[in-house]
Amino acid sequence: MNSSKRIVIVGGVAGGASAAARARRLSESAEITLFERGPYVSFANCGLPYHIAGVIPERKKLLVQTPESLMARFNLEVQVNTEVEAVDPAARTVTVRNLKTGQTRQVPYDALVLSPGAEPVRPPIPGAADPRVRTLRNMGDMDAILAALADARRTLVVGAGYIGLEMAEAFRHRGLDVVLVERLEQVMSVADPDMVGPLHDELRRNGVDLRLGCSVESFEAGAELRALLSDGSQVACDLAILAIGVRPETALARKAGLELGPTGGIRVDEHMRTSEPGIWAVGDAVEVRDAVLDGPALIPLAGPANRQGRIAADDIFGRPSTYKGTQGTAVCKVFDLAFAMTGQTEKGLQRLGVPFRKIYVHPADHATYYPGAHPISLKLLFEPGEGHLLGAQAVGAAGADKRIDVLATAMRGGLTVFDLEDAELCYAPPFGSAKDPINMAGFVAANVLRGDVALWEPEELATLREDQVLMDVRTLTEHRAGTIPGAELAPVDELRDRLDDLDPAKEYLVFCQVGLRGYVASRLLSQLGFRVRNLSGGYKRWQMWKGTAAGLAAERACGEDGTSACGA
Amino acid sequence: MNSSKRIVIVGGVAGGASAAARARRLSESAEITLFERGPYVSFANCGLPYHIAGVIPERKKLLVQTPESLMARFNLEVQVNTEVEAVDPAARTVTVRNLKTGQTRQVPYDALVLSPGAEPVRPPIPGAADPRVRTLRNMGDMDAILAALADARRTLVVGAGYIGLEMAEAFRHRGLDVVLVERLEQVMSVADPDMVGPLHDELRRNGVDLRLGCSVESFEAGAELRALLSDGSQVACDLAILAIGVRPETALARKAGLELGPTGGIRVDEHMRTSEPGIWAVGDAVEVRDAVLDGPALIPLAGPANRQGRIAADDIFGRPSTYKGTQGTAVCKVFDLAFAMTGQTEKGLQRLGVPFRKIYVHPADHATYYPGAHPISLKLLFEPGEGHLLGAQAVGAAGADKRIDVLATAMRGGLTVFDLEDAELCYAPPFGSAKDPINMAGFVAANVLRGDVALWEPEELATLREDQVLMDVRTLTEHRAGTIPGAELAPVDELRDRLDDLDPAKEYLVFCQVGLRGYVASRLLSQLGFRVRNLSGGYKRWQMWKGTAAGLAAERACGEDGTSACGA
Repeated sequence: MNSSKRIVIVGGVAGGASAAARARRLSESAEITLFERGPYVSFANCGLPYHIAGVIPERKKLLVQTPESLMARFNLEVQVNTEVEAVDPAARTVTVRNLKTGQTRQVPYDALVLSPGAEPVRPPIPGAADPRVRTLRNMGDMDAILAALADARRTLVVGAGYIGLEMAEAFRHRGLDVVLVERLEQVMSVADPDMVGPLHDELRRNGVDLRLGCSVESFEAGAELRALLSDGSQVACDLAILAIGVRPETALARKAGLELGPTGGIRVDEHMRTSEPGIWAVGDAVEVRDAVLDGPALIPLAGPANRQGRIAADDIFGRPSTYKGTQGTAVCKVFDLAFAMTGQTEKGLQRLGVPFRKIYVHPADHATYYPGAHPISLKLLFEPGEGHLLGAQAVGAAGADKRIDVLATAMRGGLTVFDLEDAELCYAPPFGSAKDPINMAGFVAANVLRGDVALWEPEELATLREDQVLMDVRTLTEHRAGTIPGAELAPVDELRDRLDDLDPAKEYLVFCQVGLRGYVASRLLSQLGFRVRNLSGGYKRWQMWKGTAAGLAAERACGEDGTSACGA
Repeated sequence: MNSSKRIVIVGGVAGGASAAARARRLSESAEITLFERGPYVSFANCGLPYHIAGVIPERKKLLVQTPESLMARFNLEVQVNTEVEAVDPAARTVTVRNLKTGQTRQVPYDALVLSPGAEPVRPPIPGAADPRVRTLRNMGDMDAILAALADARRTLVVGAGYIGLEMAEAFRHRGLDVVLVERLEQVMSVADPDMVGPLHDELRRNGVDLRLGCSVESFEAGAELRALLSDGSQVACDLAILAIGVRPETALARKAGLELGPTGGIRVDEHMRTSEPGIWAVGDAVEVRDAVLDGPALIPLAGPANRQGRIAADDIFGRPSTYKGTQGTAVCKVFDLAFAMTGQTEKGLQRLGVPFRKIYVHPADHATYYPGAHPISLKLLFEPGEGHLLGAQAVGAAGADKRIDVLATAMRGGLTVFDLEDAELCYAPPFGSAKDPINMAGFVAANVLRGDVALWEPEELATLREDQVLMDVRTLTEHRAGTIPGAELAPVDELRDRLDDLDPAKEYLVFCQVGLRGYVASRLLSQLGFRVRNLSGGYKRWQMWKGTAAGLAAERACGEDGTSACGA
């Protein structure tokens, strides 16, 4: 019964609240005290941008629990507006300050769970201390932004990650002008650049003034706030949101002598134990194990934070419970599109030097003959050997989250691209296809690993040789509507009649709209002895690629040497 | 290159068309001939009800491929209106009849793929030969139904499986009167009865006159068609659809001496080979291996048929490729609801004598504080030992297909309910919850297997003992709005203050709305030494159960002995 166990929890959102509730379910007799620096516990921080947007009209809907409800349900002693200032691991006490009265006191613990979360990064931009420059992390931040919006018309959002994108959408939803500034050449820096082009289009289509490759160098205060950007331009606004990212809040942990990991998060083992006996840590403040590649990582997500809280409570009561690492499964709504991902990205794998293969498909979310079908662009990364999944990204108006959830589960199950071919998923015309996008991705990836098709990459377009022919195997109508510069037209359905026109000495780089007809053409030509490679994802993939830094660089290179068939 | 291989394929939809296209991709030189008895190949048979409904306005959208397009793309010789009448396995020839001219001829093959599909069951109901009694399987059936609808106002649908449900919805969509007659006490006979109550409500809410536990005994022809039902009533209609089910079309296979399996489908091995060398069979006509329990099964589904066609072609060309069995993943739209399932059902497991545990959850498809959240009712079946998944069913207005796809993938990956606790899935308020319905199901199931909570079943209500107390731990407001008869109210948040009222000699059968508060109450009471069990799925589960045959029987039993707390 651990009848006398005193459990102290620092931080009352996600991980902390989960740890507290779980602890009570495991021990009716434990003394459980939860300290929260802010005025609220267990609020829906993921909902903040949507209340600002007006999509969630009632503020109180964000307050999932109150100190009173947690007392009634779980007999938790919850103290808000109370900061834990110091930990004495040897004495097993914490120093607690009541932020209303300023009084401090010592509180003993048998087990301490730290769930301090992460704090928004505030870079040292001159002028950023202006009260019109704000961040969004908690209810108070939200209330301040809403108050500032009362007479705002022009807004600036700095940083195009999850929060930045959600805030840009929220402000547009309120009818405000939005300039969205992002230092990189892409939004959603966690994603691969060749998968976010549709988000750029969607933001602009919805009236967001998107400035990529650009940062704020300073703010100038006046009747209006002026942001001076790195491209030399200025943006006047009534309110600016800094959404550059978050970093683990580790001040208390460092002061207590807890070890941090190489990423700067609190180091924990698989039981969420810190380097000090009697102290656990969970949530955005901790360094996790990357579930795909096993290295240390900082992946601040709500689901893992909740799970970690539960595991810490289990461990405190001696229950076998281990954290299996974080996969990085995430989704973000960007107006009418969703971007979802799980596992590693191409750029992540490249940075780590991990070998991989990749394919792209653009299937519809459900049978195209049934109304309302929307395309999904899906990128799959996998091991070159056995075909184990390494990561996936998807973007589309419907069904992207479903396919990423399936792939995230497949990764957890250790499945391969060959298993995706076999995946048996829900099919009726309103919900999917007899060959689901997951099956399609599996077929394409398995074809690559079995050697049934060789692929070419858009990067090769900049250095096409004389003996290489870029061949568009779509129809004349599609070709005329837009093709890769330098491509010859040879519709797949006419290919058998035109074999005499082909030169066995050449290599054919074929492509179609999404990759399927290119694959059929590749099979046809390769069986007849021609050298042929297909562009995975086809013209649609090329369109998404040509706007990336790599695509733009290729275009510049081509312009310089005047190659006609450079393709970008 | 197998340069001279002559491949003959019988049946030009799903499995047959897939086999033909795959064969061509594997061999440019093979002679591939596809015979189809009907006038169309590769049509979207799953779309037929939606064209009848008018939801898919253009008929031609259902014609995915034509003989001409298959010739152009894959160099396939496609002969429609051509029936294969006989197979001579020794001579390796088929006898083919041109249904337009009546002429027959012999066609030799090196490899023969049978994909004849399934045919609608037409029971020997007197009067069912009336032309106003129709079935729906192909384009011709659809055209005939549409023609008959021209001056129809009242329709009768017999059988409430996938086709029957889709046809009932289609007719209502056209504004017609619909009587839906089903022999069982539930629609969707493949599902468990305690999961389809919401479909019954949805059908009735949309004006379908649903008659359960009732069958058509005869049809009487006249100016109007009259169906005489087993309950003594009559239904007058202008058009009746028999949607009682399908059976494998095995006439040709039997004539050719191919072995059938115990289910009546063509027996095939994991490479889709029949008992005769040189003959493969795929699709709805074959007996498959149940991927969960390894027994023989008939599971007619489009996805598996396509996959089997591909595997047969692989095997013909000596490629290693095996069919892993069919899981039975399926989904059906019923007006604004979707019902989805994968793996085994409770009644299937009971019939086979396989031990299992089960839990029910009713989470929302996404964060409830974000607008538009809809509840999902999810039932999970799993092994009592390791917790491997055996099957799942879900019903809801949104997100049911996603969760079943995740669970189907988890089953393929050999995951357990403990892995579902850890599943890392897409979360943002519009798409899911930090604790996804999948995690919730995992938590609840794992709690059962770990012994953290004991469950009671609604069937026990009929035989409650003196020493058992039925306890509603919801709020007074919820309790007053409706509870299980005989339940005492003891809100979970007041339980700690009312412990003195409890009797340690009694066993407490607690329940809440969906099961979560009941679990919290169970943990509280069990730690204090009380005997307590929770109702998985809570009051909502009980509501779904009380309309089932078991629930109605319990109600009758209670009425007879006058027990006050029998609960139904």
